[in-house]
Parts: sequence; C-alpha cells; structure tokens
Amino acid sequence: MRLATVKDGSRDGALVAVSEDGSRVARVAGYATLQAALDDWGAAQGALGAAVRSAGSGEAVSPAAFAAPLPRAWQWLDGSAFPNHGALMQRAFNHAPIETDLPLMYQGMSHQFIGPTDDVPLPSVADGIDFEGEFGIVTGDVPMGCLAEDALAHVRLVLLINDWSLRAIAPVEMKTGFGWVQAKPACSVAPFAVTPDELGEAWRDGRVCLPLTVEVDGEWFGHPNGSAMEFGFHELIAHAARSRSLPAGTIIGSGTVSNPDHDTVGSTCISERRAIEMIANGAAQTAFLPFGSRVMMRAGEGVSPFGVIDQRVVAG
Amino acid sequence: MRLATVKDGSRDGALVAVSEDGSRVARVAGYATLQAALDDWGAAQGALGAAVRSAGSGEAVSPAAFAAPLPRAWQWLDGSAFPNHGALMQRAFNHAPIETDLPLMYQGMSHQFIGPTDDVPLPSVADGIDFEGEFGIVTGDVPMGCLAEDALAHVRLVLLINDWSLRAIAPVEMKTGFGWVQAKPACSVAPFAVTPDELGEAWRDGRVCLPLTVEVDGEWFGHPNGSAMEFGFHELIAHAARSRSLPAGTIIGSGTVSNPDHDTVGSTCISERRAIEMIANGAAQTAFLPFGSRVMMRAGEGVSPFGVIDQRVVAG
Repeated sequence: MRLATVKDGSRDGALVAVSEDGSRVARVAGYATLQAALDDWGAAQGALGAAVRSAGSGEAVSPAAFAAPLPRAWQWLDGSAFPNHGALMQRAFNHAPIETDLPLMYQGMSHQFIGPTDDVPLPSVADGIDFEGEFGIVTGDVPMGCLAEDALAHVRLVLLINDWSLRAIAPVEMKTGFGWVQAKPACSVAPFAVTPDELGEAWRDGRVCLPLTVEVDGEWFGHPNGSAMEFGFHELIAHAARSRSLPAGTIIGSGTVSNPDHDTVGSTCISERRAIEMIANGAAQTAFLPFGSRVMMRAGEGVSPFGVIDQRVVAG
Repeated sequence: MRLATVKDGSRDGALVAVSEDGSRVARVAGYATLQAALDDWGAAQGALGAAVRSAGSGEAVSPAAFAAPLPRAWQWLDGSAFPNHGALMQRAFNHAPIETDLPLMYQGMSHQFIGPTDDVPLPSVADGIDFEGEFGIVTGDVPMGCLAEDALAHVRLVLLINDWSLRAIAPVEMKTGFGWVQAKPACSVAPFAVTPDELGEAWRDGRVCLPLTVEVDGEWFGHPNGSAMEFGFHELIAHAARSRSLPAGTIIGSGTVSNPDHDTVGSTCISERRAIEMIANGAAQTAFLPFGSRVMMRAGEGVSPFGVIDQRVVAG
C-alpha cells in the first residue's frame, strides 16, 4: 500500500492512496489525514484498501502536488545506526569514541516536514548546509517498555527522508551534550509512505535493504544500502519506548545511510564525504551547499518505491 | 487571564477560563481546545475575555478535573538557563565546563504532558527518578530568525512545569552528545496557563520573578526564585528560532530553577541537592524517589498563580 498527502491548503493536507505509477491518487473515505488513519489503523484498513484499488483510475497529480506524508507529526526521533558513518566522523575529527552499546538517538523537531519538491528555506550558507539521506518508519501506538522482539508489529509505514543539517552549528551543539536544536531544521520527506509488505524482500530484519541514491545538481553523490544498520528499526523502537509510550505517527529515522565500501558507493551526506577526504588527503575538498543547490534522493535500483525528493535550497 | 484544560475524554481536553479562586471554569465559545485558541490568538481574545468574565459563576471543578493546559504540544524545547545549577553539577561530577556562550537547550518529547494531579507512571526506581521545577512559556507563531528584542511579544502564556528526569540514564545519554530521549519522559504541568500580565510585576525581563516551591511527601525541598535566569525567555525563543519557525503552542522551559544561595533556598531537583551534598561531604545523602512518592510544586508567596502540581510517582 502506498499512501501520500496532497496539498489542500490545510496544515495536514489530504490523505490519498497512490496508483502504481505514482501519477494518480484517490481520497480515503472517512479519513481526511494520514494521522487520522494512523490513529485508527485497524479500522481504516477497509477504506485504505478501497482507495488503493481505485487509485489507478483516480485524479492525475503532478509531483508538486505532494506534501510530506505527515506534514507535521507528534514525534520525530532520529537514530544514527550506521556504524561506518560514525567511525569515519570520529576518525576525521579525532573525536573520542562515543561510549555506548545502545543505539544513538536524538529528538528532532516534528512540527514541520517539508514536501518532496518544495523549496527548503535556510538562514545562511555560512551554517554549512548539508543533507542526510535516511530511511525512516512510522509507528502505530507503542506501549512504554515495548521489547524489540515485539516492535516490528508496530511499524505501519516506511519513509525516505532528507535530514537537513547545518554543519557549522552541529559540533558546537553536540559538545554541550544537549543534542541539536539549531543544527537540525525541518526534514524533507519523499512523497510515498509505503507499508512494509510493499517493499517485499527489501524489508528484512527491520531494515530497508535498498540503495539510497543521492544526486546534487544532477551529479551522483552516493548510493549506499540501508541494509548495513547496526540496529534494526525494531531495536530503535524499543530504545525509544524505554521510558515513554510512542503515539501513532511517531517517525523514527535510521541516521545517514553509510556503507564500509564508501570508496565505491559514495555517501549520503557531504560531511561524510569531507571526512573521507580529510582522512585520505588531510583536507576536505567538497564544499557545503550554496543557495540554489538541487538535491535529489530516491531508493532502489529501478523506480523508487518512495518516489523522489527533488528540491532546491533557498535563502530563508 | 488564566486558562486551563479540563478532561473530557478527548486527547486534547476542553479549553476553559478559570475563576480567580481556581474552583470554577467556563468554556470558551468557538474554541474547543487551547491549541485552537493559540492558532487563532488575536481573533480568540473576545471569546477568551467573555469566558474569563463568566468563570466566577461557572461550573465548579475539583483539582483532579484538570489536564495539563496543553495535553500534547507540537514542540517542547527545554533550556538550562540557571547558571548556579550548571556550576553545581559540574563541580560535583567533575565535568569539564560546557563550552558555549549560547543558551543550552534540548528538544524533548511533546506528545504527552501529564495533568497536575495524575499519577506519573515510570518504568523503574533503578533509573533514579527525579523532578525538576521549571517555569515555561507558550509561544504564538514565531518566524525563523526572530530576534530576542522582538521575541517577548510572542509569549502567549506562562506555565509551571515538572520536568521528570531519570538520573541513572541522563549522563549516559549526555555523553553521546545526542541529548536525552530515555532520560526525559513526559513532563507534568500545573493546571493554569496564565497570560504574562496576570503575573504583574513578577513578569520582568522575560523572567518569572517568583519563588518555585517544591515539597516531597509533604516536606519542604526548596523555593529558589525564577528571576536568576542567565537568559530570559525572549533570548530562549530567539535561540530556538535561529533555523526554524516555531508553531503556535511551542513550549519553552527555563531549566531547573536554581539560586546561588541554595544553602537557604534549597533546590528544585534531587540531583542538585545531591551535588551540594557531594561537594560539602564527599557523598550524596538524599535518595532519588521510590514509587509512591508525592511531589508538590507551586509558585509565589501566597496563592500560586499557576495552581499546584501534586501527584504521585507509580510503577508504569
């Protein structure tokens, strides 16, 4: 099942099911928004299924019609589950290793997720504008204390996310121990939220086993595979629910997708490529983004099951 | 103007204006929830004023009728703006000083705020259950890049908050640099959200210049004054809005209220009292909370303008 949200002038947009080719949509009877369907997931299955079946003959839409699947959400918790990324950053910046056996996770802003073709307004290029290609999941209601072995059943939808990051601010905030506020503005999300079964064999062990391809201004930047997570999404859910219940519509991110063979598959953020350059050559060559830059993200070898993020960074 | 939310079985409860003695309430015509009024603040002033005028002859309610003013919010950003608290923690735990001239701030969970007399379910006493007495503000819509000098105008309401904290987990998460997820479960909030003018002279320079009194199981724990913030709420708003816009209903916290004369005024969290004990005697004497503990918070010398938080910690 592929669901999306089309812009209708309201804060939460309108829930739709999406045709196989992604060009047509059908409204979902009785569920105006994706949050409403997530709040009532079991009961909504009939209406969602009917909308999926009628989407092929539904309204034709352009890519610009789509908002983020959840234009705002009650919770966004972002992991950092690819050990290759952490190891590179540590080595390049000569950090002490982060002392924990637990998943890394921070709470990010969730009151705004940017649509896949919308401009991304940011205050200054001096902040070091960067992207991070991630996979994410949307949960149902998860009780406090949920164990990892029970957590996969709470995964409702899978997402492709660009976690915009401001690299001049990030290390300053990280050093305080308080996590990131200024360094983590609103994320962008690809148009289609898909049920795990829609991914077939690519959804394995709580991981999205697909390459995530990034292009900047039309040039390949990387295509590492989501399979290399140290912790699966079920383990990230259990970590998040240790001392809180998670409301339906909680989004949990994988962190920057990163693979050990980065020399061939590249990276999904500039900061990691710069770290690789620093380790190899003693200095970073790749610059952060100027205003006007276009960042594209998609997943898989053929047609991206999540659709495509393709948008520009602009002065905010 | 004193506003509150009474429980009505819905997720967001029902907005009411509160009588002067806090015992009677009146619904607000056209605004079912506090979030709805915040989303439309200017236009809502007439209906809010009418409800305030009729509250004295309104429905009688018990303290248990009140939910948190915002039972869920789109954003919760908590500062740590009392330098005395930071200095004590640093000295007791022999931390390196936090290197920043900027306000300290983390993003916390905002999908649940616990009502002032509701039980607080937590997973384990081994986590080191602690409270933190804080003041907080609720913003209107704040544009990205808002300056501190323009920010006070965006303060809609002032709150009294207990930021529950799990001390066995907090330092482990802080060391990662990612901030707190497990160590910061849902906060509790006193029943009445008050407009700044309601505080009179006690609202000065973006600070709540009132003592915040904490009692544990009926015994005095502390009553430091909110005036000692290093940064006022206007500066915290500007910090938060550096690279994001803030939606109406954003809650920003002061961090644990703490004063340099802590020997006489005490503390608003156990962790700080333990730090003082460690510095004075080499070891902490005060234990964290067992299940069944009752924590009371109120503000001011006489009747608390925010009402009272008075609730028990229970096994979750």
